[in-house]
Amino acid sequence: MKETKTILLKNRPKGRPEMADFKFDTESVQDPGDGEVLVKALYVSVDPYLRGRMNDSPSYIPPFELNKPITSIIIAEVIESKHDEFKKGDHVSGMMAWKEQQVIKANGLIKVDKDKAQLSAYLGILGMTGLTAYLGLTEIGRPKKGETLLVSGAAGAVGSTVGQIGKIMGLKVVGIAGTDEKVEMIKNDFGFDKGINYNTAENMTEDIKKTCPDGVDIYFDNVGGEISEAVLFNINKFSRTVVCGAISVYNETSLPQSTSVQPFLIKKSSLMQGFVISDFADKHAEGVQKLAEWLKEGKLTYTETVKEGFKNIPQAFLDLFDGKNKGKMVVKV
Amino acid sequence: MKETKTILLKNRPKGRPEMADFKFDTESVQDPGDGEVLVKALYVSVDPYLRGRMNDSPSYIPPFELNKPITSIIIAEVIESKHDEFKKGDHVSGMMAWKEQQVIKANGLIKVDKDKAQLSAYLGILGMTGLTAYLGLTEIGRPKKGETLLVSGAAGAVGSTVGQIGKIMGLKVVGIAGTDEKVEMIKNDFGFDKGINYNTAENMTEDIKKTCPDGVDIYFDNVGGEISEAVLFNINKFSRTVVCGAISVYNETSLPQSTSVQPFLIKKSSLMQGFVISDFADKHAEGVQKLAEWLKEGKLTYTETVKEGFKNIPQAFLDLFDGKNKGKMVVKV
Repeated sequence: MKETKTILLKNRPKGRPEMADFKFDTESVQDPGDGEVLVKALYVSVDPYLRGRMNDSPSYIPPFELNKPITSIIIAEVIESKHDEFKKGDHVSGMMAWKEQQVIKANGLIKVDKDKAQLSAYLGILGMTGLTAYLGLTEIGRPKKGETLLVSGAAGAVGSTVGQIGKIMGLKVVGIAGTDEKVEMIKNDFGFDKGINYNTAENMTEDIKKTCPDGVDIYFDNVGGEISEAVLFNINKFSRTVVCGAISVYNETSLPQSTSVQPFLIKKSSLMQGFVISDFADKHAEGVQKLAEWLKEGKLTYTETVKEGFKNIPQAFLDLFDGKNKGKMVVKV
Repeated sequence: MKETKTILLKNRPKGRPEMADFKFDTESVQDPGDGEVLVKALYVSVDPYLRGRMNDSPSYIPPFELNKPITSIIIAEVIESKHDEFKKGDHVSGMMAWKEQQVIKANGLIKVDKDKAQLSAYLGILGMTGLTAYLGLTEIGRPKKGETLLVSGAAGAVGSTVGQIGKIMGLKVVGIAGTDEKVEMIKNDFGFDKGINYNTAENMTEDIKKTCPDGVDIYFDNVGGEISEAVLFNINKFSRTVVCGAISVYNETSLPQSTSVQPFLIKKSSLMQGFVISDFADKHAEGVQKLAEWLKEGKLTYTETVKEGFKNIPQAFLDLFDGKNKGKMVVKV
């Protein structure tokens, strides 16, 4: 019987995750049953949100189990199929375990076309990243031409896509990032109008005021924490905050405190809404189509950081918390 | 030429307002010009939010000017009209100056019908109070039958109305108030299903969990602060928080801090939105009609405290801060 390598969650991380929280193992691969396919992983997505699933607390998706494989979105190739709609050689995308090979129910998988875009793009700009950016901005941000969009985590995979979509939609787009190099990148590579380096800023509230002289109509929040506090002082009447991520506080072990948002929300009749991409499952097809169109027309660009090797998946994940990635982080198995 | 008494803002209050902050004066009354009416004040609304306008800081409405009359919603009788749609003897509601008589543009006024309800009701249950409750709950809370509605400041004019409308709409309604007497009142007089006394609660998070066993779908927030923090731990997926007031922090001199809401909003795909009643001006007529209907059918009840005499307007306003009112405070001129 065939064997496959797999990566398990060994410990629930305390604060920042580390290599010792993961365990490599091997297990046998069964033959696919009816409706199942045997697939080989090609590209594995590593994402900050996986950190949340490593805690034993309820969230929008259940926690990972200890000593069970970690799962994330994976692009795989079908090796053997017991499902009519999939055949050997097909490329598929879906939530799969961190295994080199695995048997999985086919009806949770989506076929992807390597002639339309690079396979890894389906983990990023045409996958969760792109959909998060597109649906968060359009469904919660509800942009109107000429408005000001402020994006935190702007050099990240989601943030850089949000900014580009903002420009396509006729917004003034300002990004916040952590290095001068990233600020240059979001302006030069992704077309942001302006950028702020929060690590060198003396007063974020004032810097936002200067770069957003008409105030902030939409704040796409990928980071939370102090940056988001500074934004509060600059939101406009009827502004919308898309609460997409809070990476600045994910590793905190006690509940983070900050300036109360409620008085600001009242003063500005302002909306703040959290979301995960699964909330808009009925809009995914529309979103991928729109994104693929823009990508084809050259209106959207993306960067990705590709690590090589199955064994490097945990390190690629850890690198996210050091900001070592540019754009979407993927591992080529 | 006729003269009228008026009440001016003499000083911007430091902390709690006092009588010395007001000044009585007399001024002449002009004849109404085209499109104007001369009116006589009958009932004057005094409201906590007026305190905010006495500060020289921007908010959702501009500050009062020093040595100019204070304004609030007033029910008045038309004495002389230069506008086709208003005639002598009509009763009107609108934002007017604290004057016994005044000339005012008619197109900012709404006619009120004393045969449908007591005139003072148009300052409360059929006025800003009722509309705030109705439109906050329906437009932001978007209630669905069977959901759980939690209301803070539940014994107040807005809170007690929110709870009653919640019951009319088929919700499970729980109220938070500050005394056992008030908790009894919201249950017995206003039909809330359950109540929590936050002053005697040992653990608000647990008490909310017990009284809202299915979690909180809609939180109508009149108070902010610690109570609202405890609610965060009990919100459901896709819950809505109507941020209506934050009276618990209005007197703080530094920015209040609290547990960051963003991670909760992400986990629960939850919405939090501030509003003032003027945001929904296009829905006021619909709201008043609905509220009047329910009032007539006996489905809605309200309490009011009526002070007599124009000269007692400032004292009635000051009394609000001693909690001397039950329900809506109005002055009969």
